Amino acid sequence: MAGSSQAETSEDALPGEFETIRRYFAPLAAGMPGALDLTDDACTYLPPAGEELVLTADALVADVHFLRNDPADLVARKMLRVNLSDLAAKGAKPVGYLMTIAVDNTITSSWLANFARGLAEDQRRFDVHLMGGDTIRTPGPLSLSLTAIGTVPAGRALRRRGAQPGDLIFVTGTIGDGYLGLRVLRADWPDLSFGHRQFLTDRYQLPEPRLALGREIMAAGIATAAMDVSDGLVADLGHIAETSGCGAVIHAERTPLSGAAADLLSHEPDLLVKLITGGDDYELLLTIRRENAARLREIAGKAGIPVTELGEMTDSGSVRILDRDGAPLDISQRGYQHF
Amino acid sequence: MAGSSQAETSEDALPGEFETIRRYFAPLAAGMPGALDLTDDACTYLPPAGEELVLTADALVADVHFLRNDPADLVARKMLRVNLSDLAAKGAKPVGYLMTIAVDNTITSSWLANFARGLAEDQRRFDVHLMGGDTIRTPGPLSLSLTAIGTVPAGRALRRRGAQPGDLIFVTGTIGDGYLGLRVLRADWPDLSFGHRQFLTDRYQLPEPRLALGREIMAAGIATAAMDVSDGLVADLGHIAETSGCGAVIHAERTPLSGAAADLLSHEPDLLVKLITGGDDYELLLTIRRENAARLREIAGKAGIPVTELGEMTDSGSVRILDRDGAPLDISQRGYQHF
Repeated sequence: MAGSSQAETSEDALPGEFETIRRYFAPLAAGMPGALDLTDDACTYLPPAGEELVLTADALVADVHFLRNDPADLVARKMLRVNLSDLAAKGAKPVGYLMTIAVDNTITSSWLANFARGLAEDQRRFDVHLMGGDTIRTPGPLSLSLTAIGTVPAGRALRRRGAQPGDLIFVTGTIGDGYLGLRVLRADWPDLSFGHRQFLTDRYQLPEPRLALGREIMAAGIATAAMDVSDGLVADLGHIAETSGCGAVIHAERTPLSGAAADLLSHEPDLLVKLITGGDDYELLLTIRRENAARLREIAGKAGIPVTELGEMTDSGSVRILDRDGAPLDISQRGYQHF
Repeated sequence: MAGSSQAETSEDALPGEFETIRRYFAPLAAGMPGALDLTDDACTYLPPAGEELVLTADALVADVHFLRNDPADLVARKMLRVNLSDLAAKGAKPVGYLMTIAVDNTITSSWLANFARGLAEDQRRFDVHLMGGDTIRTPGPLSLSLTAIGTVPAGRALRRRGAQPGDLIFVTGTIGDGYLGLRVLRADWPDLSFGHRQFLTDRYQLPEPRLALGREIMAAGIATAAMDVSDGLVADLGHIAETSGCGAVIHAERTPLSGAAADLLSHEPDLLVKLITGGDDYELLLTIRRENAARLREIAGKAGIPVTELGEMTDSGSVRILDRDGAPLDISQRGYQHF
């Protein structure tokens, strides 16, 4: 165990494990009866009749996936939202999550209170509840692991595989804002307007999982494949193509951009490649049979979320990105890999 | 990211994230159709009709919960078994697990292969499958997080709460072997026989989750409360008493001991307190209405697992441990707390 620090000796030191759970985490489980206020070793949960479970897990480490000085509530909310985005891409309705947290000796009571406040805020927003977990100490950096659980009508979950040559490729919302938001946080483009800076950092720190739209698309049965864009548009399209056993061609200039991204791109045309490979978008990437494209546009229109057709799936084995002249774009960096 | 190490530059270096998953983890998901060979972001699972889910999560960090030089297969198997023990205490049948692993730069391909081999072995033994997870790199020590999932007939899960004054307190198997096994691994009692040493270290490294017996007890409906002994017999009895809103009294000399533990105790009588507070037993601690005691003995007898009556629940607010003269035993250290 690492030595003591200021936090451990101050009034802001964490209490013991059981008191930490009681004070910060048990209130987050209040809406999940089977969690028994985290006084038991396990949570019970009965899915609605006819629904199957959808389960996904992610891990995050301080200094790798987020910065030690990032606000704790935003770290918590992004961690939850990134997992909810995976559920959204399956068409699942989120239910709850289990979380393990390994705290180092710099973590204070006020940090943890802020972290729990962030979770509470997004639990209300997305109607999910803490179902269980574990709190331990680590001599290394703060580490988080989250398993998110949702439900979907049995057999109806959207998957990566299933795209067919000729299917149209759509993406929701705008692409590249997460990448730009991270760069703004790293002090790039200091002359960018306050409004644009705020918009981009919000998109990076608080992605919006497309849960309602994902459910509608699942219910309509019109997507042959779906995933959320986390590794970057190009890399994730590659995942769909690979698992579906086909290829894809998209037109880079069709990439839907926010006003802030378009503004930056107008000054730095080379940014386009970064926007489509940068990742952290958490938009839905969908393949849709041509005859269902109008239905998708109708559903998205009702949800108030733009969808953009980028190209189509092909029977080649590769993903091609075309520039505005129809020439292949050189994509040297296909998606950010934390690993 | 931490600097490179010998492992990262040798032939034994880990491959990239996707290849690591394909090579070591995808085979562990082969028996879980909804995991799609880990080529998707999430796993689907439909519980049997009438069954509800039981979910539990644990985290482990190298140098805190296990030693960096512990055999990787044993680290993996203990991690899985400890979680299965939580399911056993609920009377649940295990289904599978999601696992996140944060590897540091000392982790080699052969370490991970050995780790996966251990998981594969216990997956066969306990009929569970990998359902998903995440593999990341950390600048800190190797960190593991596991969410285990089981099912139980809806509403029938055994819980910590529910014990009533007058209920008899039983424990399965023998107590203290895990504590002694850890000390043997730390080179205590070098004169102990090889057979005893082997038995004790096995009990520490490869606890046996009481899954079948837990299911039988759940099905018989005879336990008013149950949990597995991980923090130590005294501390865990305290958890049952606290969540059930009552007290307990047990007789320390009734503690069931293995031959190895009895041998050591005969030379060091003061060890008894360590055995009942040491933890890492993974036996079932049960409260049973007096009229159902014979039924419990019958079920345990059929399962070939001894059960021992330790005392009874009381209407006081405290847990009392009595010595062979009926005097209160001084328990200064009530259970090992990693936190």
